[in-house]
Amino acid sequence: MAKFVTLLTDFGLEDSYVAEMKGVIYSANPDVTIVDITHGIQPGATMRASYVLSRTWHRFPKGTVHVAVVDPGVGSARRALVVTNNDHFFCGPDNGILSPILERSHAFAVPITGAASPTFHGRDVFAPTAGQLVRGTNIGALGVPISDPIFNDFDWPRLEGRTLTGCVIHIDRFGNLITNLPGDDALGALDVSVNDVNVGVVRRTFADVDSGDLVAYVGSGWTVEVARRNGSAAELLGVGVGAEVSGVFR
Amino acid sequence: MAKFVTLLTDFGLEDSYVAEMKGVIYSANPDVTIVDITHGIQPGATMRASYVLSRTWHRFPKGTVHVAVVDPGVGSARRALVVTNNDHFFCGPDNGILSPILERSHAFAVPITGAASPTFHGRDVFAPTAGQLVRGTNIGALGVPISDPIFNDFDWPRLEGRTLTGCVIHIDRFGNLITNLPGDDALGALDVSVNDVNVGVVRRTFADVDSGDLVAYVGSGWTVEVARRNGSAAELLGVGVGAEVSGVFR
Amino acid sequence: MAKFVTLLTDFGLEDSYVAEMKGVIYSANPDVTIVDITHGIQPGATMRASYVLSRTWHRFPKGTVHVAVVDPGVGSARRALVVTNNDHFFCGPDNGILSPILERSHAFAVPITGAASPTFHGRDVFAPTAGQLVRGTNIGALGVPISDPIFNDFDWPRLEGRTLTGCVIHIDRFGNLITNLPGDDALGALDVSVNDVNVGVVRRTFADVDSGDLVAYVGSGWTVEVARRNGSAAELLGVGVGAEVSGVFR
Repeated sequence: MAKFVTLLTDFGLEDSYVAEMKGVIYSANPDVTIVDITHGIQPGATMRASYVLSRTWHRFPKGTVHVAVVDPGVGSARRALVVTNNDHFFCGPDNGILSPILERSHAFAVPITGAASPTFHGRDVFAPTAGQLVRGTNIGALGVPISDPIFNDFDWPRLEGRTLTGCVIHIDRFGNLITNLPGDDALGALDVSVNDVNVGVVRRTFADVDSGDLVAYVGSGWTVEVARRNGSAAELLGVGVGAEVSGVFR
Repeated sequence: MAKFVTLLTDFGLEDSYVAEMKGVIYSANPDVTIVDITHGIQPGATMRASYVLSRTWHRFPKGTVHVAVVDPGVGSARRALVVTNNDHFFCGPDNGILSPILERSHAFAVPITGAASPTFHGRDVFAPTAGQLVRGTNIGALGVPISDPIFNDFDWPRLEGRTLTGCVIHIDRFGNLITNLPGDDALGALDVSVNDVNVGVVRRTFADVDSGDLVAYVGSGWTVEVARRNGSAAELLGVGVGAEVSGVFR
Repeated sequence: MAKFVTLLTDFGLEDSYVAEMKGVIYSANPDVTIVDITHGIQPGATMRASYVLSRTWHRFPKGTVHVAVVDPGVGSARRALVVTNNDHFFCGPDNGILSPILERSHAFAVPITGAASPTFHGRDVFAPTAGQLVRGTNIGALGVPISDPIFNDFDWPRLEGRTLTGCVIHIDRFGNLITNLPGDDALGALDVSVNDVNVGVVRRTFADVDSGDLVAYVGSGWTVEVARRNGSAAELLGVGVGAEVSGVFR
């Protein structure tokens, strides 16, 4: 049976770091399939890594091992985790990056030996741990069970009367604004504003407005997004992650 | 037997989109090999995607499924296509991106169900279609045969007397200008100018001129290219895609 | 048994070149696993490619074929090499890029036929050669043994009295300065300065200083590195590759 390991880091694609991790994993498991989620997370941006993780892990086959390393505290006293949830496995630092899968999960703290480079646990702790999981080692044998992994507080939108208030949580390559307003019941009903600029009621897709116009729609991650057809909404509106977004139910 | 799926998109490498597509394909076909052609196409640049597709698809084994998604019209009435040509398979939007392989091909329009996100057919239409092809589903069972797929008009050079007039169709990472002037009979015979700057007769390779000099040669895609040895011709000449290039047969 | 080919080039990820090489290798060996080391080497930077190669090749399983193509002299009289060392195989131009593995190796010059594009030996010489090695062709059958491959002179640090003087050999994505000062005996003993700015004695890791402070430590490649905790040392110090670094043993 094919086995999968996914990698999600802030290591970029120009240094040797990602390849060193892959060499370690392949040497332990020549038949594994390694898939890059992204290595383009902004250095240290654990929240962004969590968002990407939340959108991707469940698309892979059960049994997949997901390695997520955005790790500004590497070498400090922060713990190294291995977690299982819904028949998927996750390895990463205990700094909140694994938040999207921690609820109703089983988490274990992996011991860190003196042989590990104190600046590269991706290669010396998380890759070998992933390799052991792929080979079928029981997760309980890899570490000590813990009940207090670190969660990042996710910024949930507030509902007051008929008004939802949230924010931009991600801006993608196209300049589309991904918000934390839920997509449920939004189509044709929620009137959306970004920083007090009204972009109209939630429509089906870009093509429902003219080229160059702004449009709100339910995105492929099932939250409300704001785009500019054939352009960049982020650029036109001059907003970044954290900008306030509100929606009023008609 | 190993089976291949190639991916060619404008999704970039920093968002979750490419990994979501891969998860869908691997979940349906754990033994497939997925190969990234590039995800760095400029957003919406279907012509550039076509050029990259034309240089790559035939290098892969017969039976390969090529998924090409540069899709500014996603969610509109534009059709989704699956095409076969020369024992290769292709999935992508009906917007001209598949032009290089449409001649003498068999094309089918794939139905788009309401369950597909209207902004992410890469994940919800083209990846599942590729997955079905890899599993051996007959292409004729995937859609309705059509005879009018959309072609992009390729800009062919004009020959008047002994003068060929064409243009720059691509600039690569090194600043080399790839033109649409055919390589046939050009070596030692065609005298090339870019925007009225003469770069001399077509030579064999960069090393045939001094460092810093401009040189025309027959490129690895079998058209005339213009490079600056150990430098960027695009920067030195200040030209972009579309710049006029002429060649006079001696 | 799984077989591996790694690729290390300056071709970038936006053109068709890397995919053309992969197509050639997969067509010859559908069951091979191809791993990208990086394609982000600055155009023509053979020294940087050598550094990345030196950190990665030995992490992969024995039998792996490593293709390294940074090749400003492509098409000139420079030789094409295939080299074996420690049960790994290497293909690349004879321009010093393979320096890290040339000592105590066996090197052969591969013939270059007229059918090879004089500007793309990656696709037409090195990829096919890698494909033959993966299929089990004896390396001695691929070329003529040579004893004079080109070495890049690596810049070794000088020790005078208790003072080591070396330089920055690489700057990574995080702005960390990788130096050529050896890590042996440095921890707690070597007092490090970059361009006359003292950064203190070598510590264990970033977390041993406050956020924003500079720190020297033994890096994951076992040489001294200088970082800024939660920031970029390269930016703060305004230095690049080649900057002088000195260390005084206490």
